[in-house]
Amino acid sequence: MIRSLVLGLLLLGGLWCPAQKKIVVYQSDFGLKDGAVSEMKGVAMGVSPDLKLFDLTHEIPAYNIWEAAYRLQQTVPYWPAGTVFVSVVDPGVGTARKSVVLLTKTGQYIVTPDNGTLTLIAESLGIAGIREIDEAVNRRQDSRKSYTFHGRDVYSYTGARLAAGVINFEQVGPLLPKQEVVSLPYQHAVMEGAVIKGTIPVLDIQYGNVWTNIPAELFQKLGVKFGEMVVVRVMHGGQMVYQGEIPYEETFGSVEVGKPLVYLNSLLQFSIALNQGNFAAAHGIASGGEWMVEVRKK
Amino acid sequence: MIRSLVLGLLLLGGLWCPAQKKIVVYQSDFGLKDGAVSEMKGVAMGVSPDLKLFDLTHEIPAYNIWEAAYRLQQTVPYWPAGTVFVSVVDPGVGTARKSVVLLTKTGQYIVTPDNGTLTLIAESLGIAGIREIDEAVNRRQDSRKSYTFHGRDVYSYTGARLAAGVINFEQVGPLLPKQEVVSLPYQHAVMEGAVIKGTIPVLDIQYGNVWTNIPAELFQKLGVKFGEMVVVRVMHGGQMVYQGEIPYEETFGSVEVGKPLVYLNSLLQFSIALNQGNFAAAHGIASGGEWMVEVRKK
Amino acid sequence: MIRSLVLGLLLLGGLWCPAQKKIVVYQSDFGLKDGAVSEMKGVAMGVSPDLKLFDLTHEIPAYNIWEAAYRLQQTVPYWPAGTVFVSVVDPGVGTARKSVVLLTKTGQYIVTPDNGTLTLIAESLGIAGIREIDEAVNRRQDSRKSYTFHGRDVYSYTGARLAAGVINFEQVGPLLPKQEVVSLPYQHAVMEGAVIKGTIPVLDIQYGNVWTNIPAELFQKLGVKFGEMVVVRVMHGGQMVYQGEIPYEETFGSVEVGKPLVYLNSLLQFSIALNQGNFAAAHGIASGGEWMVEVRKK
Repeated sequence: MIRSLVLGLLLLGGLWCPAQKKIVVYQSDFGLKDGAVSEMKGVAMGVSPDLKLFDLTHEIPAYNIWEAAYRLQQTVPYWPAGTVFVSVVDPGVGTARKSVVLLTKTGQYIVTPDNGTLTLIAESLGIAGIREIDEAVNRRQDSRKSYTFHGRDVYSYTGARLAAGVINFEQVGPLLPKQEVVSLPYQHAVMEGAVIKGTIPVLDIQYGNVWTNIPAELFQKLGVKFGEMVVVRVMHGGQMVYQGEIPYEETFGSVEVGKPLVYLNSLLQFSIALNQGNFAAAHGIASGGEWMVEVRKK
Repeated sequence: MIRSLVLGLLLLGGLWCPAQKKIVVYQSDFGLKDGAVSEMKGVAMGVSPDLKLFDLTHEIPAYNIWEAAYRLQQTVPYWPAGTVFVSVVDPGVGTARKSVVLLTKTGQYIVTPDNGTLTLIAESLGIAGIREIDEAVNRRQDSRKSYTFHGRDVYSYTGARLAAGVINFEQVGPLLPKQEVVSLPYQHAVMEGAVIKGTIPVLDIQYGNVWTNIPAELFQKLGVKFGEMVVVRVMHGGQMVYQGEIPYEETFGSVEVGKPLVYLNSLLQFSIALNQGNFAAAHGIASGGEWMVEVRKK
Repeated sequence: MIRSLVLGLLLLGGLWCPAQKKIVVYQSDFGLKDGAVSEMKGVAMGVSPDLKLFDLTHEIPAYNIWEAAYRLQQTVPYWPAGTVFVSVVDPGVGTARKSVVLLTKTGQYIVTPDNGTLTLIAESLGIAGIREIDEAVNRRQDSRKSYTFHGRDVYSYTGARLAAGVINFEQVGPLLPKQEVVSLPYQHAVMEGAVIKGTIPVLDIQYGNVWTNIPAELFQKLGVKFGEMVVVRVMHGGQMVYQGEIPYEETFGSVEVGKPLVYLNSLLQFSIALNQGNFAAAHGIASGGEWMVEVRKK
């Protein structure tokens, strides 16, 4: 009897303070000036007040699916398994794009329209499973008349129910027949002879550093040591935008203020910066698939 | 004895992990660049570390009470009953405006100066009760010398104590004799013959969509079907700013990129947009009481 | 046996729902547009999903250590003892600056590079202890190859472990031999005859109010009553930028819209404003050590 009491109390304890992580992380292009993000979070709190809600960013440029994909790739690996991401950059809202939940091989869930948002995370973390959201069950009550805010009525609602344990992954909806995502085309990093080519997937915008998709392992094949120079060319649509010789350094402080350096960023990718300056602004460089970076040892 | 043990443990459990929702949602015109919002939240954490603190927005344009009112109307209905909102847009801080807590008929609390901020939410959700904050008891200790930050010392403090169950609604202070709020004047949506008139209470600023206060039910009296055209006129202070024929669509994707559509937004209000463009910027349209929209079936 | 059961359950309860405050507050110059802040928070959630994570601001101007110092001084006192702040404005990342944790005499912890960020908080709240972070133990696993994101791999990781009780203050690392911080030079507020001099440490940027470092007690030595006039001079690098006579008021509403007033701000410091206007923009005033304010009674 004591035993069942203990068990009962533990179960009760489980109801009050469950061991699940119950974490939801939101990303969107809604900005923070209106009530849209708060509506999504209110719906989640209505599902369970025990959820812990965070933001990746809501400053994705409007309709920029590529940047949404990049931010997920950058961030998801640092959150524990079981974390649920809700990403709503959805220019095709109401059209035929599928609403899905991806489970990565490292255990994070991503709730999103399958419009290219999953391009990079599916490559980098792998697909453990991808299910289409069954909106017949996974949609807010009383939202049938509202056509345009799937972020609140489907994505946040489903993400919150998944994170809170109200539904499990199977209850999201049917597995996609092909376990694959809609992918945006982009140029992968390659080595051609003594030259490495890559793209500029994103800028480190707060500082104006140029980040590339060239991983450390590929760059290191050039055999460049700290303090040695590389020749860097940046092109846009085939047009030369920047060419220069820059030292490879371990830290920003290794060069004078205002001077350029190349380095491995926190994602261990080849990057270009000015120490305490804005390299991208100084040379008119932006990000996206039309940009190409070439690097070789001097 | 076992019974009292169980009861004691449950009570103890209740103290550690209470079932109350303990949610506070903040809104202000403080922006996110300085420490003001964090000071408010620090005070709330000092009241109870079990509170869960969220933001509606802190990007209300400075002193814009109308927009504060609008954001509450947009957002509050999506949060569960018991949620406490703290809204601080307070150009008259230190003057005779009352500090109040409104309880809506759907169970949410709003802590705010009664300066017009409650205009719309009082209309849409109804007033279950409105009390003036008794600052003799509901004010931070050691804040008597500080005259200018009621948001921290009165509103956040009172909201946190209410959400944490330290005080109940009665302990906020006396009921206002007339159970009514200070209201800002604005033009309601009306049908005049075959024409519907309304205002532009707010823009969907991230995308530049024009939202009106014309509800779906009123618009539907025009009998317009998806794909059919309406004639839209937008005026500012009686001056024509835009006139055009636009199709009524269920989704943005139903028209070409860059083309206009009218639709029902997530609040089920008549709205005007460019698919993947900025209608407001394209035609120089802003929001506020001086703006009027007229719609009729073509 | 019942007793040990009760004890066991309490301990178990303690593990599930501990009484510790478990609060971490983040500040940085990262902005909110990319994934950097979210990476820091993901690491903290990996340490313990029971932590409560907040933001002071992430809009510190890039590399502006002075403003980081100012925001901490403004905000930290309003958070309860035991709160852990993680402040990452770190232009010297990777250079010889120390990574430290300061414990204030009022019980808050601040995890930061010791680069001047602690200048003001060490003066105002006092140093109960300051320890250098031992990165041999207080650094994320698998972060050895990454040189540039100490905010995530050292500061957030250490702050989270400290707030969660995984380590205590002693386990951060060795006490600094001299219990002192790296301090930025700045001009203190002084009274010279009938004139008080001070600096403009920061603007109340959302409203354009000019905040000084002149405390209420010093200003009150001028014997100015509400409604009486003071003569205010603002100089930049010795050059006069503004001179005028302004009334001292208890509230903004005491003067007409658009008119100037001087007042004591929420930090009880002498400040200058336009009622519902932007004093700083109107007169081209900014903040920093080169700015001087002089005040005397008319």
